[in-house]
This record gives sequence, structure tokens and C-alpha cells, in this order.
Amino acid sequence: MTDRTATTTWTGDLATGTGTVTLDTSKAGGFTVSWPSRAAEANGLTSPEELIAAAHSSCYSMQFSALLTDAGFPPERIETSARVSFGPAGDGFAISGIALTVRAAVPGADTQVFARLAEQAKQVCPVSAALTGTGITLDAAPA
Amino acid sequence: MTDRTATTTWTGDLATGTGTVTLDTSKAGGFTVSWPSRAAEANGLTSPEELIAAAHSSCYSMQFSALLTDAGFPPERIETSARVSFGPAGDGFAISGIALTVRAAVPGADTQVFARLAEQAKQVCPVSAALTGTGITLDAAPA
Repeated sequence: MTDRTATTTWTGDLATGTGTVTLDTSKAGGFTVSWPSRAAEANGLTSPEELIAAAHSSCYSMQFSALLTDAGFPPERIETSARVSFGPAGDGFAISGIALTVRAAVPGADTQVFARLAEQAKQVCPVSAALTGTGITLDAAPA
Repeated sequence: MTDRTATTTWTGDLATGTGTVTLDTSKAGGFTVSWPSRAAEANGLTSPEELIAAAHSSCYSMQFSALLTDAGFPPERIETSARVSFGPAGDGFAISGIALTVRAAVPGADTQVFARLAEQAKQVCPVSAALTGTGITLDAAPA
């Protein structure tokens, strides 16, 4: 079992304030976030949704690699993009969906095996399994 | 409505491969990920779980700031840490829980208002609402 921690220090109200996000466990980076850069143009700043996209794309890639290798088809390369949509919902805001697009070079895997394992990876990857409060779509094809 | 995209390019099998994660929309950063640095010591590399922690801590902070301001108590400073736990579950792995720790300087807010809005932020922040597949705990106190 591992624990990973990140911290956001926020100052001010939502509209005009800013936050500083640090990756505490790895110390691999830090970011500035703000509401305008989340709800409108990014203007070079990341956001909770882009960080979710990073988490999901990396988790999916690992899961698909593991399933392909277990089936006897270790992949050469998997490219996974996650697009996270965010907008008004009810009287607040919501993550309205995540679209995964996967292109992978997998020597020897036929189309059916590829499609079945790509779908399975979407179902069982730990980040997908945590994100059950939003819809996830998958477009997967051999590269 | 906004879209945010991140991409992971993975090469190799799970045990020995590595991935490169890019924040495509903001271009605010890129990371290397690997299974050993996810499931054991981080060794300076981030992971899906640490990125989820970054997303959750930043989303929670914005939501709490918004609720406090709406209630007439704009915060001076909110510090939110998210600790994401990951480990074996069934015949795979799972995100077993997220612990939020919040310390905030909120002039004028009494203890009851503080506690009520801190809990409400946990419930309604869009990242919490997407992460319904795992348990979320909250420890919130005035700074």
C-alpha cells in the first residue's frame, strides 16, 4: 500500500484568488491554479480537470500495458489522451465526462483481442474505478 | 463548458516500461511515470494517485473558498492536503481512499459555520462528485 500526497494553498475568494499546488510525495513539480484559468481559457495554467486527465491517461496506459502483456502481447507503445469536460450543472459545476483516445502499437494482437483488452482496461484501471461519478468513453485503435 | 486534455505515451510492459505525461491544454508541465514509482517508493516520480491528490486538493480549495465567500466570510488562506492511498484489492489494485486535511484562516466564521461549509465543500466539489468510487474523509479546522 502506498500513500501519495499533494497540497494546495489557496488565498482569497474564488473569482480573484489563486492557489499553489505542490506534489508533496515526489516533489516532481508545482503549479498555479485559478478559477478563470479553470472555467475559461487556461492561459498556461493547469486545473483540477487537466490533472485528472493526466492521472487517468497514465493509469489507463499502465493497465492496458499490463493486460496486453498478461495476454502474451507486450506492447511497444501506447498513447492515451484523456479529455475531461467541465461546466455548469444544476446550481454548481460538474465534470461532465471523460473521453479516452488510445492508439497503441501491439505486435501480434489481433483486432478482437486488442478491442477486448482496451475495454477491460477502461473498466478496471484504478482511476476509472474511482471516477464512477462521471461518464467515461473509449476510442481505441491500433496505431 | 471547458475541455482539458493530457496525454501519456507509454513504452514497454508494466514492470519495466515508462510513460511520459504531458499537460496538453495548458502546457504547464510534463512528467515521467513508472509502475515501480507508483506501487513502491516514488523516487522523485509522480503517479496517477499523486495527480489525483493534486486535482482534489485544488478543487476542494476552490469550492471551500466559494462557499465561504457566498456565506459572507471570504477566506484569507485555505491549505488543503489530499492523501491518496493505493494498494492491492481483489485480483488487482485500487484507490482505497482519499484523506483531505484542511486548515483555513477565515475571519469572522464561527466554528459551526466553518465545519458545515467544510463538509459541504467535500460533498459538492466537482472532483469529489466524480470520485464516488472511493471513500473520502475530511479533517477540517481553523488555522
